[in-house]
Amino acid sequence: MIPRYSRPEMVAIWSPETKFRIWFEIEAHACDAMADLGVIPRENAQAVWKAKDVEFDVARIDEIEAVTKHDVIAFLTHLAEHVGSDEARFVHQGMTSSDVLDTCFNVQLVRAADILIADVEALLAALKRRAMEHKDTLRVGRSHGIHAEPTTMGLTFARFYAEMDRNLARLHTARDEIATGAISGAVGTFANIDPRVEEHVCEKLGLSPEPISTQVIPRDRHAAFFAALGVVGSSIENIATEIRHMQRTEVLEGAEFFSMGQKGSSAMPHKKNPVLTENLTGLARLVRMAVVPAMENVALWHERDISHSSVERNIGPDTTITLDFALARLTSVIGKMLIFPDNMLDNMNKFPGLVMSQRVLLALTQAGVSREDAYAMVQRNALKVWEHRTDFREELLADEEVCKALSVEEINEKFDMGYHTKHVDTIFKRVFGA
Amino acid sequence: MIPRYSRPEMVAIWSPETKFRIWFEIEAHACDAMADLGVIPRENAQAVWKAKDVEFDVARIDEIEAVTKHDVIAFLTHLAEHVGSDEARFVHQGMTSSDVLDTCFNVQLVRAADILIADVEALLAALKRRAMEHKDTLRVGRSHGIHAEPTTMGLTFARFYAEMDRNLARLHTARDEIATGAISGAVGTFANIDPRVEEHVCEKLGLSPEPISTQVIPRDRHAAFFAALGVVGSSIENIATEIRHMQRTEVLEGAEFFSMGQKGSSAMPHKKNPVLTENLTGLARLVRMAVVPAMENVALWHERDISHSSVERNIGPDTTITLDFALARLTSVIGKMLIFPDNMLDNMNKFPGLVMSQRVLLALTQAGVSREDAYAMVQRNALKVWEHRTDFREELLADEEVCKALSVEEINEKFDMGYHTKHVDTIFKRVFGA
Amino acid sequence: MIPRYSRPEMVAIWSPETKFRIWFEIEAHACDAMADLGVIPRENAQAVWKAKDVEFDVARIDEIEAVTKHDVIAFLTHLAEHVGSDEARFVHQGMTSSDVLDTCFNVQLVRAADILIADVEALLAALKRRAMEHKDTLRVGRSHGIHAEPTTMGLTFARFYAEMDRNLARLHTARDEIATGAISGAVGTFANIDPRVEEHVCEKLGLSPEPISTQVIPRDRHAAFFAALGVVGSSIENIATEIRHMQRTEVLEGAEFFSMGQKGSSAMPHKKNPVLTENLTGLARLVRMAVVPAMENVALWHERDISHSSVERNIGPDTTITLDFALARLTSVIGKMLIFPDNMLDNMNKFPGLVMSQRVLLALTQAGVSREDAYAMVQRNALKVWEHRTDFREELLADEEVCKALSVEEINEKFDMGYHTKHVDTIFKRVFGA
Amino acid sequence: MIPRYSRPEMVAIWSPETKFRIWFEIEAHACDAMADLGVIPRENAQAVWKAKDVEFDVARIDEIEAVTKHDVIAFLTHLAEHVGSDEARFVHQGMTSSDVLDTCFNVQLVRAADILIADVEALLAALKRRAMEHKDTLRVGRSHGIHAEPTTMGLTFARFYAEMDRNLARLHTARDEIATGAISGAVGTFANIDPRVEEHVCEKLGLSPEPISTQVIPRDRHAAFFAALGVVGSSIENIATEIRHMQRTEVLEGAEFFSMGQKGSSAMPHKKNPVLTENLTGLARLVRMAVVPAMENVALWHERDISHSSVERNIGPDTTITLDFALARLTSVIGKMLIFPDNMLDNMNKFPGLVMSQRVLLALTQAGVSREDAYAMVQRNALKVWEHRTDFREELLADEEVCKALSVEEINEKFDMGYHTKHVDTIFKRVFGA
Repeated sequence: MIPRYSRPEMVAIWSPETKFRIWFEIEAHACDAMADLGVIPRENAQAVWKAKDVEFDVARIDEIEAVTKHDVIAFLTHLAEHVGSDEARFVHQGMTSSDVLDTCFNVQLVRAADILIADVEALLAALKRRAMEHKDTLRVGRSHGIHAEPTTMGLTFARFYAEMDRNLARLHTARDEIATGAISGAVGTFANIDPRVEEHVCEKLGLSPEPISTQVIPRDRHAAFFAALGVVGSSIENIATEIRHMQRTEVLEGAEFFSMGQKGSSAMPHKKNPVLTENLTGLARLVRMAVVPAMENVALWHERDISHSSVERNIGPDTTITLDFALARLTSVIGKMLIFPDNMLDNMNKFPGLVMSQRVLLALTQAGVSREDAYAMVQRNALKVWEHRTDFREELLADEEVCKALSVEEINEKFDMGYHTKHVDTIFKRVFGA
Repeated sequence: MIPRYSRPEMVAIWSPETKFRIWFEIEAHACDAMADLGVIPRENAQAVWKAKDVEFDVARIDEIEAVTKHDVIAFLTHLAEHVGSDEARFVHQGMTSSDVLDTCFNVQLVRAADILIADVEALLAALKRRAMEHKDTLRVGRSHGIHAEPTTMGLTFARFYAEMDRNLARLHTARDEIATGAISGAVGTFANIDPRVEEHVCEKLGLSPEPISTQVIPRDRHAAFFAALGVVGSSIENIATEIRHMQRTEVLEGAEFFSMGQKGSSAMPHKKNPVLTENLTGLARLVRMAVVPAMENVALWHERDISHSSVERNIGPDTTITLDFALARLTSVIGKMLIFPDNMLDNMNKFPGLVMSQRVLLALTQAGVSREDAYAMVQRNALKVWEHRTDFREELLADEEVCKALSVEEINEKFDMGYHTKHVDTIFKRVFGA
Repeated sequence: MIPRYSRPEMVAIWSPETKFRIWFEIEAHACDAMADLGVIPRENAQAVWKAKDVEFDVARIDEIEAVTKHDVIAFLTHLAEHVGSDEARFVHQGMTSSDVLDTCFNVQLVRAADILIADVEALLAALKRRAMEHKDTLRVGRSHGIHAEPTTMGLTFARFYAEMDRNLARLHTARDEIATGAISGAVGTFANIDPRVEEHVCEKLGLSPEPISTQVIPRDRHAAFFAALGVVGSSIENIATEIRHMQRTEVLEGAEFFSMGQKGSSAMPHKKNPVLTENLTGLARLVRMAVVPAMENVALWHERDISHSSVERNIGPDTTITLDFALARLTSVIGKMLIFPDNMLDNMNKFPGLVMSQRVLLALTQAGVSREDAYAMVQRNALKVWEHRTDFREELLADEEVCKALSVEEINEKFDMGYHTKHVDTIFKRVFGA
Repeated sequence: MIPRYSRPEMVAIWSPETKFRIWFEIEAHACDAMADLGVIPRENAQAVWKAKDVEFDVARIDEIEAVTKHDVIAFLTHLAEHVGSDEARFVHQGMTSSDVLDTCFNVQLVRAADILIADVEALLAALKRRAMEHKDTLRVGRSHGIHAEPTTMGLTFARFYAEMDRNLARLHTARDEIATGAISGAVGTFANIDPRVEEHVCEKLGLSPEPISTQVIPRDRHAAFFAALGVVGSSIENIATEIRHMQRTEVLEGAEFFSMGQKGSSAMPHKKNPVLTENLTGLARLVRMAVVPAMENVALWHERDISHSSVERNIGPDTTITLDFALARLTSVIGKMLIFPDNMLDNMNKFPGLVMSQRVLLALTQAGVSREDAYAMVQRNALKVWEHRTDFREELLADEEVCKALSVEEINEKFDMGYHTKHVDTIFKRVFGA
């Protein structure tokens, strides 16, 4: 985790304090369930809740762990210091460390997913607002980085909206994938604990009981979770790449926010760098790099080996923290980015009228000109525009052969922008609903 | 694609013949829709269907492509050879090559997903059958490769069932992700074609219209698709690893099918190698390696660049073919694998009774022995078993101090296997339903 | 392997014919060595060479393999059909299949490396030629896609040259990594074969004996090999990205080769797409995707498991074929690409003179103006250029306060391009030598 | 970076203190060079060295950065607080932030490489010691997890030695790859600074001048560096996997160190888990996951974009710290691991004598028995051993048909272990030298 690429709410999920709080809740709820089942005395179960509002002392737990060499035992020892040794003696009965660790990890991932879901919702709101704002802002569409046909800036925002809306669905699925808990013992047989304890604890923590676990919760769930995050990261890269292109000096159709002319702003307005979206491009790589190790974690030996653990200690916090930060940064960039509609028109007219050449070619053939001849007509006029930056429409109007095939009105009509924007409403309805 | 790791049905999806057949359907349905809209004459739309049962001549199309340098034009030219030049003249009107290519690719991926779904269903049936068969077959559960507590072979099959059942759901989601088509023109604005053409074609092909496309269908869908396949691959590795462990000489609790003593079988029964599951381990790596490039494909420049195409020409067929083969191979392995219950008992008793040591330790402390003393009692007896392979229960019964804390019945009771299997029914009900 | 992204020489390395030819050589040389050692009769060793010029019949070998279920035995059986059963009876004596398979695989990788090395050498020649040609062609340098300071097109080619020259060294190292052979038996102990057989065979095949093998050659070698290819692929992406940027409509400083105005060329000169370099971007992803599975192949169980094999059947041919094709394609692109120096100057002057603003700022402070004041002076003039595209130098000359700090000569001098190119010779000498 | 998987020396390389110290040296040496060239006054260059022994105040620099929003400027401001504003006014003249940042990053990577090299050397020493110790310790070699032929434990250590020795060479190469510095200005043209400054600074820092840089040092170097680390990580996984296999309950040929029977040791000697090597397996995945993003970092836009930076802020420290920790942990595991030669013999005799069946088969055919008959003879006796765990040699001696083909001496001779170990010396000489 790199502090400068993190936000406190997500970081807090991964703090020792949060972890111990979740451990406490698992243990306390488990005691309740055991008391309900008559396995342990009710008063012992109740006594555990004395620590309900205690802030566990991480340093003290570390101190105990240095002796016991076992994190869960260290915590339980510390818990007993609050609850009383005798009262606490049934805590954790019949349970395995993994029951606590794995269930806690999933609680943390669920909470992380909730933040990420909120992040995407905020991003969607920003994208929608900008889409509406620039629904009709004309801009040249580009394939292969080359001018193709007109489109609108609003459609660009709208497609990012649609993509992020799919990511929202993926995150919901990922959250559900991971929202399970297991309290099933050393090899998952519930030998020493009743399955109803698992059911009770899971219900209290907002989880489903893992239908079948071993010592651990199966790691295909986590692989699917991190894969979903990797897709979200890739979409961030997609949007970031568009903005980086928009901001490059020759294009300048949009830019990350900056204010010109103010005191304190840079002396060089042309040297405003899209550093936030470049940074997002890198962060996307960091999010994505968790996917393969998460998948390598699936094949554990028999009822568990611990190879997954060090991987998860890293990617659990790092990937969720990075993605949270990236989503928030992207939302801010989208919300404030500068859009330069005039430059969009200038760019579209770099070779005046040439973006319409395909349409003219089609019109000529539809008017009965052979494909070869139509090609020749378009080509000779296009070349003039290409070489001398004259106006394509004017060249056509000055070309006798063209004018024989098409009337002036027909030629002019081919340069009507409305032709390209007539279905924007339809698309917006598809994306944003009525 | 490696022929030896492929099956014909999936290979057929990726043949040029299939591709051209899908292209034909897209074009023919598009003509119908355009005729419905009055954009082209009905008779021309109908004429296209003359090629309905034609087997397109791939060599001939290649020949034309060598001249035209364009695959879609080559196909259209060949189509016109069947339909008649004049009748075919409205085919593809207002469309872009990508409208055909991308929609076709998704049709292929949907069909591939359907096969993979059927593959997983077959695998589930095999896993369920073996789970039921060995529901009560005792086996030692292992954490860290080390004996922990008893479990059953059926639970192992059951957890693979549950994992693959989750993969089934993931494949259904992946299939839905990819089941879209787009016929929206050069930059996705429907400038030259009515959105209702897209709707009609998609409906006929079993797809949804892509709500908003550019020149291409957005690639986050494909990233999510291949990520799902990567998770399935990882689960295959998980199951394969278990079987490889079972078959190793020292364990020998199960094996890929072989018949001993028959003529033609190997002279050396002990040298039966788990080559199929080792192969599956490698195939899992191949499936997984598509995930990152599929994610790198998401960030295309503006309305499209073609960097994704070469990647997809590879991973489209290779990954689906490999995964299909791997799932089928695994189903066969599971269905026929040999299970050696006697060896399972032998292994469990390698250090006779020692798997129960934890339970004895617990019983001693519950009987009021201090933790330190209980430890010492278990330890001294466990060490005898460890060093001399004597029987742990007998050592305990011969230990006066132990016998002071626990009665003979209590000691014997700790070695009851039923203690560990009492919840197998519950777990099976969770996994397989009532 | 995708036929359209392959070249015959590299494909040939991976044909069954080549494989059997190499198998033959391994077996024949091994017989020679065994005859030298007196282990087998000389005449039998000599007899094997009767098959020296035989074209092995792949279909026939496949036919035998269908019966024997073993590729090496099938080959040996076929070999005996040429050599004579009796004469061939010592062939392969004391050897394991892996001795043949692994040594053959490394021979293939070495040959593949040789082609890749030649590919990079050809690319270097093209890069050097273009670097020399455009050594002094002025172009704006860009950081973050934003104009920074002038540089030259030749420096761009020179840095790609330097990068590919490092890749050449990496490929040589990778080739050496993989140039080993092993004929050491079932677990690498030479139990049934003398180490001198290995030495002889390796010498004849241009390999070093693997110092210590198990049943197989250790796979860290292959991991390092494919990692090196992944780096080369990444450099291809780097160069391809630069060209794609150069060709985009707004930049148009260079382009993949096309000829305008010729018959048969496109009607639309502005719609020339950088499809080759976009394709190279995708191919780079394909090359790179082999790296992780090659690394996952390293950890084989004990003296070998066969999980690596399916991976290598794929990445062995696919990755080398793809990289060979990509290097050749890139060499062709570089060799023929169009460079538009006039557009480079136009771009540099998009905001006339503004690329020199940093230098002016520096000059003002060096002339004793306070940093704040210098900032303000530059800023107000830069803003005029930014907003009205006037000439920065002229704005400065018209700014009284600036003219108080700097003389006309000093101002003009700041716009001298020679300032930026004065060390091009030095850099070229570093890169290309004297 | 996960504190529990880190060691202080490597962590220190990545501290802000170290970074600022290196920045200082770069700036101070650059001033010296500029003074030598007469570009700045000698006394100003000398004045900078006043800060030679200063501990820079990280909090203070952060404070300044909060205002200036620029890390290098913040540092320079703080430096001036030590050196004096006036004296420091030439510091950084003509330089770009990247000159400092990139050169510093490479210094850090070089230092990290030096530690990793020392780590591997320590590991090699441990492996060699254990190899010598167990040179003749018999152990069954396994292919596919199945008993094949005898080998020795020493050969296992020796092959890990050979593999790590190759990694040592790879790390040296990786170190050389990264040991460059660049002080070449905003686009690498040395417009504002003499190339001799770069040369001087690099010499002082133990680097070579980057022959051609842009604003940054080319990232193919870093890709190659992290790829090398990924290979080392994969080798760690390889060794860790072997030990995990050795320790599993059924195999028990070796184990991570533990002491039995001592006070404080676990009550259950059979439950000693190979948690260190399992952890190493996970750490290997973490090391490996840096490879792809490092390769994705290569393709920067034009003279630089900053997408690589966030990636490197993560993988720079995390990957080197993790690998350092993993190598040290592995060295400790190897050095202290328990080896159980008796269990090795027990395992080899699980099916008594059956590991020699291949050799007997060979002997029978060499004695003139047809392959079919020889097969049948071996098979029927092997089956008895397989089913009843009788002794293969005794079964053969009791088989009349076998005894007709081979004498008692010949049969007995086939069970001589010396046959399998006769070349151990040769192999050790290859690996360890004379």
